[in-house]
Amino acid sequence: MQNFKSPVRDTKFVMNELLGFEQHYAELGFEDASPDMVEAIFNEAAKFTDNVLAPINAIGDQQGCKWEDGDVTTPDGFKEAYQKYVEGGWPSMAHPEEFGGQALPYSLSASIAEWFSGANHSWAMYPGLSQGCMETLKAHGTSEQKARFLPALISGEWTGTMCLTEPHCGSDLGMLKTKAEPNQDGSYKLTGTKIFISAGEHDMSENIIHIVLARLPDAPQGTKGISLFIVPKFNVDDDGSKTDRNAVHCGSIEHKMGIKGSATCVINFDSAKGYLIGEPNRGLNCMFTFMNMARIGTGLEGLAGTEAAFQGALAYAKDRLQFRSLTGKKNPDGPADPIIVHPDVRRMLLTQKAFREGNRALAIYCMKLVDQGLYGSDEQQKHLAEAKLALLTPIVKAFLTETAQETTSYGMQVYGGHGYIAEWGMEQLARDTRICTMYEGTTGIQAIDLLARKVLGSNGELLKVFGQEIRTYCQSLRDKQQFNAWANAVESHLDEWLQLTADIGKQAARNPDEVGAAAVDYLMYSGYVTVGYLWLKMAVVAQEKIDSGSNEVDFYQAKLQTAAFYFDRLLTRTRSLVSAMQSGADNLMSMDESLFLVD
Amino acid sequence: MQNFKSPVRDTKFVMNELLGFEQHYAELGFEDASPDMVEAIFNEAAKFTDNVLAPINAIGDQQGCKWEDGDVTTPDGFKEAYQKYVEGGWPSMAHPEEFGGQALPYSLSASIAEWFSGANHSWAMYPGLSQGCMETLKAHGTSEQKARFLPALISGEWTGTMCLTEPHCGSDLGMLKTKAEPNQDGSYKLTGTKIFISAGEHDMSENIIHIVLARLPDAPQGTKGISLFIVPKFNVDDDGSKTDRNAVHCGSIEHKMGIKGSATCVINFDSAKGYLIGEPNRGLNCMFTFMNMARIGTGLEGLAGTEAAFQGALAYAKDRLQFRSLTGKKNPDGPADPIIVHPDVRRMLLTQKAFREGNRALAIYCMKLVDQGLYGSDEQQKHLAEAKLALLTPIVKAFLTETAQETTSYGMQVYGGHGYIAEWGMEQLARDTRICTMYEGTTGIQAIDLLARKVLGSNGELLKVFGQEIRTYCQSLRDKQQFNAWANAVESHLDEWLQLTADIGKQAARNPDEVGAAAVDYLMYSGYVTVGYLWLKMAVVAQEKIDSGSNEVDFYQAKLQTAAFYFDRLLTRTRSLVSAMQSGADNLMSMDESLFLVD
Repeated sequence: MQNFKSPVRDTKFVMNELLGFEQHYAELGFEDASPDMVEAIFNEAAKFTDNVLAPINAIGDQQGCKWEDGDVTTPDGFKEAYQKYVEGGWPSMAHPEEFGGQALPYSLSASIAEWFSGANHSWAMYPGLSQGCMETLKAHGTSEQKARFLPALISGEWTGTMCLTEPHCGSDLGMLKTKAEPNQDGSYKLTGTKIFISAGEHDMSENIIHIVLARLPDAPQGTKGISLFIVPKFNVDDDGSKTDRNAVHCGSIEHKMGIKGSATCVINFDSAKGYLIGEPNRGLNCMFTFMNMARIGTGLEGLAGTEAAFQGALAYAKDRLQFRSLTGKKNPDGPADPIIVHPDVRRMLLTQKAFREGNRALAIYCMKLVDQGLYGSDEQQKHLAEAKLALLTPIVKAFLTETAQETTSYGMQVYGGHGYIAEWGMEQLARDTRICTMYEGTTGIQAIDLLARKVLGSNGELLKVFGQEIRTYCQSLRDKQQFNAWANAVESHLDEWLQLTADIGKQAARNPDEVGAAAVDYLMYSGYVTVGYLWLKMAVVAQEKIDSGSNEVDFYQAKLQTAAFYFDRLLTRTRSLVSAMQSGADNLMSMDESLFLVD
Repeated sequence: MQNFKSPVRDTKFVMNELLGFEQHYAELGFEDASPDMVEAIFNEAAKFTDNVLAPINAIGDQQGCKWEDGDVTTPDGFKEAYQKYVEGGWPSMAHPEEFGGQALPYSLSASIAEWFSGANHSWAMYPGLSQGCMETLKAHGTSEQKARFLPALISGEWTGTMCLTEPHCGSDLGMLKTKAEPNQDGSYKLTGTKIFISAGEHDMSENIIHIVLARLPDAPQGTKGISLFIVPKFNVDDDGSKTDRNAVHCGSIEHKMGIKGSATCVINFDSAKGYLIGEPNRGLNCMFTFMNMARIGTGLEGLAGTEAAFQGALAYAKDRLQFRSLTGKKNPDGPADPIIVHPDVRRMLLTQKAFREGNRALAIYCMKLVDQGLYGSDEQQKHLAEAKLALLTPIVKAFLTETAQETTSYGMQVYGGHGYIAEWGMEQLARDTRICTMYEGTTGIQAIDLLARKVLGSNGELLKVFGQEIRTYCQSLRDKQQFNAWANAVESHLDEWLQLTADIGKQAARNPDEVGAAAVDYLMYSGYVTVGYLWLKMAVVAQEKIDSGSNEVDFYQAKLQTAAFYFDRLLTRTRSLVSAMQSGADNLMSMDESLFLVD
């Protein structure tokens, strides 16, 4: 099995060379996040990732989690790795000093989270969910709630979860039934069953803080009657000490295709004690803060799968000898050539590489926007960042996870039959990564969020804002002849994007189903164009580095050639997406439901 | 979990209404295969499939096979199901009466094999491999060998395997090392290790007959020095009786992503006794007979995955309530509408349905060609059938299995997070079906076979032959205005197909890597056009049935609407494939191998 290596160099390329993070951090007042400090943190993170998390990834899959009498045991090594994570101070990076945090920017923590997932998707979910819980507390908790729950979460002593889904409602949270009835003391009594609760129960931390969606008595029906609650596994004193066991228990864990080291729990609340967080009936709105970060986080898991699949496939493609190159022996002393000489193997590797690097650029671009929204003081910049982020969040979630299905599948395919065998690790990657297009809002849900809520819902304004950035950049390249073709490709895609949007908007006015009929293709189209824009920028930076005499010519040359591949073979996928979108809703909706039969 | 239902009606539609099998069987002299007899066989086969094989599918996945001391135990119920299969006479369907067979046509047996796989991919592999062994014996064995080995195989008392792969060689069989040294008595002594031997060892049958590729002493290097041998697990008397144990043993079984009920064995030959079959050093040529059928068989497994995924997704889409239709409530008395009202869910279901039916038409079209090649007496028709089959075999193998990756993935996606949970069965389907693009020649290998060997290797002749059939049909529709747009789409694709072929041929003359660079996109393109041609034919037949007052209007109306979906949303995928093909080999080959780095 190929060892995982954290993509430190490529992450630094995107942050420092492509997106100007040194200036970005300086502008936001993160003096501690100097390039030297970032470098040091990255090196430590890579050590932890590559040496602690990666070696227990296969074990996690083989052993899975075990449930007994409401307790969940994580696979061998998971608990010890979590302890090292806590000792290394990783949980506290991007949290306020007031509660024991290190007050470093979100983007630093998030870029490392990608590596954690690449090395061990299952393990990384425990701290990942905990971060979601902390962000919700930070954004919506009272000072008293923050003081009571945050310190032990930030130190990593406790972990947290997000409890949304119920058996009869996943995407459609308006249907949820869990009840919260007021107690005399201002707390609430929660009753109901939640499913698919990642990290809902485990043996890594001393307490688990659940963030739970539930209904107050007499709350309005639907999404406008949902409130948010804090429900600890062990009750917590005013001073933040753990006390007696609360009536919240893990009823069972799911048997899943992958991420077997991650406990996916049924959580039963039996008059469990909880605390309202945020305004009554505004729970879903509070959730959206968390959801945006969680969606970027899920996009990162997709990216991480792509990274790991690329690493595995590349190692095998250089090692496995099979057939000769059609243009003459490349390994004349061996019995055959390494399979990387074959064009179709390269097609798969370059697809992985182009998504690995292009998608990372998109993810970190979004992290920069999150930073600006969280920490910025320039109101205009904040507003602009939030607008772009609103547009890009569903794209980063769905595009990075959909493309990861292809890249992790190629991870297996490059290995031929060996890719199907557990010992090489590639099939685990494909299984683990498969969840990413489903949880945290399916691709279909992201696509509706993008097209209906964000793009059409803003009357095209959000797209216009981002489009302007793309157009300005493309036009700034007019005198760089080398890049004219690619810049023209990106700009003409932008024109087409705007036109498609207008067309769909017009059709949707007549028939609302036109939105749903176009949405997923529209999202994928948007992803290809956005990543195309970033590949253009990466290519320009790479050429500048070569021209200025960099001693890393190979690194930058590979960027230029991968960009060429992207423009030739991946951006052109938009052609079929456009055809599909333009075909309209009739071919989907006109068939009567009764004609859908097994016959 | 959704029960599996054999697609009897749809199979009969393709055979009887689309492809004229009644006349086809009559022409080939299969008087026993009358429509009534076919109907009766299908009904019995569906009972066996749906009631015996489907119920043990999940058990097979949960338990897997167990290896101990060289013996392999199959999951609970597998052995009993095999016994019923034997008692039902299924193994003997398409074999000569001389050896106990029923002398029915190959196509009947193959079309049922699809259902077996749909209900239980793992189980179906045991009889599937056995059929491969029998076909090889029938095609290349001496009369003595046939008399000795065939009767017990045909009755199902024994099973068979195909032993090709070795640890260092999968696709590139020229590198294989297993030795065969002559004994005094005319037999051979085989020594070597084979891997990935499906059904290589198990507890279902009394003896296992291995067909083994090996090298004679002083055989030429490479593919021209490979011979074919029969190596029984238990030696066999001249009269066909089982005697003592041969020196062939199962060293271990693989731990795989899926098809866990299928034993994937390492088989060690330690001076095992074997018999040469066919001419010395012509083993690979003998293999090709088997390989063509095996490739259609693998295509059928992909189709079977599509079928089962469609059945599962459809049931859930009609049952699961989530959100309201954007065009008004469709289930006003319920808390939400069934998700089949949402356009994107329909997009996934219709993609499955279009491939389920279009791909089945292609598979059965190929079976008809196999029948003509095997049983035909009209030399010109035989020649034509063989030409078309040569072209279509790599397409049916790769296109049906690649599209199955999408359809089985949609099977999960329609379920949302529930798709990832074992109990619904959809994730097992995706795992089981994943192997199909890898074994029996990867998609990359099929693509080279199609473009290099079949199309360019025949100077375009094979494509011209098949293209003529398509053109003639499209032109015959000129006065059916309803179908003009679709017929024009198919015919203009045919023109483009021929042009692309000529262009690639020209470029390949300058740079042989151009073939590999275009091959997979070319194969997928070919698949979309071929299935488009068959959808056109199906639509025309459906309209004729409606016009002639059929009482199955719903069935035919669904065909017409699914055709519309195919032409609008699937055939148009050729646009991006063409762009990719036309981009040439440089974007794959110009990057130096040393620039492929993890950084």
